[in-house]
Amino acid sequence: MTAPAPARTTVGIVGAGPAGLLLARLLHASGIDCVVLESRDRGYVEQRQRAGILEQGTVDVLRESGAAERLDREGLPHDGIELRFDGRAHRIDFPALTGGRRVWVYAQTEVVKDLVALQLADGAPLLFEAQVTAVEGAESAQPVLRYTHQGVERRLECDYVVGCDGFHGVVREAIPAGARQTFERSYPYSWLGILADVAPSSDELVYAHSPRGFALLSMRSPTVSRLYLQVPNGTDPADWSDERIWDELDARFALAAGDWKLARGPITAKSVLPMRSSVTEPMRHGRLFLAGDAAHIVPPTGAKGLNLAAADVTVLARAFTGLHRTGSTELLNSYSATCLNRVWRAEHFSYFMTSTLHTAPEQSPFDTRLQLSQLDRIAASPHAAAELAANYAGLPLV
Amino acid sequence: MTAPAPARTTVGIVGAGPAGLLLARLLHASGIDCVVLESRDRGYVEQRQRAGILEQGTVDVLRESGAAERLDREGLPHDGIELRFDGRAHRIDFPALTGGRRVWVYAQTEVVKDLVALQLADGAPLLFEAQVTAVEGAESAQPVLRYTHQGVERRLECDYVVGCDGFHGVVREAIPAGARQTFERSYPYSWLGILADVAPSSDELVYAHSPRGFALLSMRSPTVSRLYLQVPNGTDPADWSDERIWDELDARFALAAGDWKLARGPITAKSVLPMRSSVTEPMRHGRLFLAGDAAHIVPPTGAKGLNLAAADVTVLARAFTGLHRTGSTELLNSYSATCLNRVWRAEHFSYFMTSTLHTAPEQSPFDTRLQLSQLDRIAASPHAAAELAANYAGLPLV
Repeated sequence: MTAPAPARTTVGIVGAGPAGLLLARLLHASGIDCVVLESRDRGYVEQRQRAGILEQGTVDVLRESGAAERLDREGLPHDGIELRFDGRAHRIDFPALTGGRRVWVYAQTEVVKDLVALQLADGAPLLFEAQVTAVEGAESAQPVLRYTHQGVERRLECDYVVGCDGFHGVVREAIPAGARQTFERSYPYSWLGILADVAPSSDELVYAHSPRGFALLSMRSPTVSRLYLQVPNGTDPADWSDERIWDELDARFALAAGDWKLARGPITAKSVLPMRSSVTEPMRHGRLFLAGDAAHIVPPTGAKGLNLAAADVTVLARAFTGLHRTGSTELLNSYSATCLNRVWRAEHFSYFMTSTLHTAPEQSPFDTRLQLSQLDRIAASPHAAAELAANYAGLPLV
Repeated sequence: MTAPAPARTTVGIVGAGPAGLLLARLLHASGIDCVVLESRDRGYVEQRQRAGILEQGTVDVLRESGAAERLDREGLPHDGIELRFDGRAHRIDFPALTGGRRVWVYAQTEVVKDLVALQLADGAPLLFEAQVTAVEGAESAQPVLRYTHQGVERRLECDYVVGCDGFHGVVREAIPAGARQTFERSYPYSWLGILADVAPSSDELVYAHSPRGFALLSMRSPTVSRLYLQVPNGTDPADWSDERIWDELDARFALAAGDWKLARGPITAKSVLPMRSSVTEPMRHGRLFLAGDAAHIVPPTGAKGLNLAAADVTVLARAFTGLHRTGSTELLNSYSATCLNRVWRAEHFSYFMTSTLHTAPEQSPFDTRLQLSQLDRIAASPHAAAELAANYAGLPLV
């Protein structure tokens, strides 16, 4: 099934996560030649646990690229989330507050599987275990990707190179340090995430602020729950027995009235996720472009990581299509500025959700009251609720 | 002109700032007996520089209490503010965003003068240089205020005592430490404020975010400008020459396009204001009540201090009126909870305005981008702008 390894292409894509794969689909649809090089094997890429919430705009572009057949069959449309704080529950109604927008629960692993299958079936070049070792000629008209594949050293001449290879990828590193600036923030807490074989105890996601710290009830499917607990940085998942996890989740989701309990089930995965933000500017240098995690990281609280990646490559595919059809580089030239506006909005929203819902290690009682006043206001003010809903369900692409 | 000093009253009010004076007016209008004791002399109280922005609701209650005659003649109604950031200007239109609410520029000193004149003219007891030395029997049915006046030690028996005597006042101190909790936050910067005899360079207030720090253009009247610069804590106003102040203001208000300059004039006052927040809970203990700065402090960025004081005493006057007319203590019993909901909203809004517009000493470039993204969003989203406008122009009383 492995496609042949050509020596030149129009767009060399490094990384077969959602950004690289979706870009390849969109370019393919526009008749633009590309090659995807992925350092890991197919199994690894398809099993990597990541996000699970797709914005309306992300679903739209997956449909446009022909990759939404299973998503439309198996994905769970969600019309809201619940905020739980001070022992109370408040629902945010997305369609009512945003003029009809909603989100879908469909795991990133499934998005990747769907895109990989399509890409391989089409015969477009997608090489696994192809390790890029150098990106040459960033500022020339013909950058070159050097990589090893099946024990052989190869080179791929490209008109353009797109780095979809994540935060530690080679493409960002190929941009001279003096030509890029990285903005960063780390948060003083992490998430302990579990997968459990049990039907979710709520039809919609529950974001809980509690004196014991943040908790999130999410799901992967009607039979698989995804749950998170705020934990100190450096936490070892081995210190958290299954019973301790369930007891702590119950305590953090507790309502003042009633006897709400989580349904428990076998925990099949347990891991600790760091919480940090990073943005690299600009997202283009010469003929190198950055997209997705290669350009920016968000903490998971706002569910924005995968959606930003989809937005980046949608903007970029339109720019390449514009060049292909008209010869104009106008959209390529505005790519970085167009994306960064959305990226900073998402960074701010992710910061807002994170800092409003978590309890920092040295947090004062004053700051806890500010959080509760903010949450109260979201419950009381249609404008405040609409701001949250618009950002969560996803802003229009441009 | 000094009223006689009675030995007993229904409501003993400590402090003749806006809170105490307005409460006295409202109680007088309801036929409820009260006495106001103020430790300072009349000149001091009438000259103390404080806030200058009155919310719609504050103007409404001043009118209701008959104290708005000069305010309605000389006060400047404002229908918006300008946010200036990233070299751009964006106007927030209050009536359009709030269904008709606006604010008034009318200095606190003038509010106090108007209220003092009315109170003295009515002959209701208002004693200056009356230093309360003890508050006794907080938990009894008949608390007593001991005070010295004109060299004589006196006592005033009260049914209720209201502390309108500021953050360092005696009434809050009379509440046992175990019966109250104080929530605090201090900010790592101060304001250098000036008064200048020059027509304001803008018809509306200008809140400026700049890489050099925050600046605010305000005014006291059509011929007096009030201007502020963010400065480090511990700044000595003597280190800031008039020319340095004007140059720095010009730099912080600079627009990317055009040649906007502040009109300069003689600086008549120069002082440094700390920025902090404080809330004491509950705002009642037995027959002692706290109102205004005695219960809560806000940083000046949101212009909420005077308005919170007016809201507190409006709620409290209604409660005393309810008791007077029906014998029910229901509204007195809910006073603290009713006020604290509004207080925390104002604390959060003041924090939001302060932290969005100021540059903290150790602020990272990432955090500066978050501020700019937040300001961009307020300029782009009617919901975000409406939230700011609703909070600034003032939320309904209950």
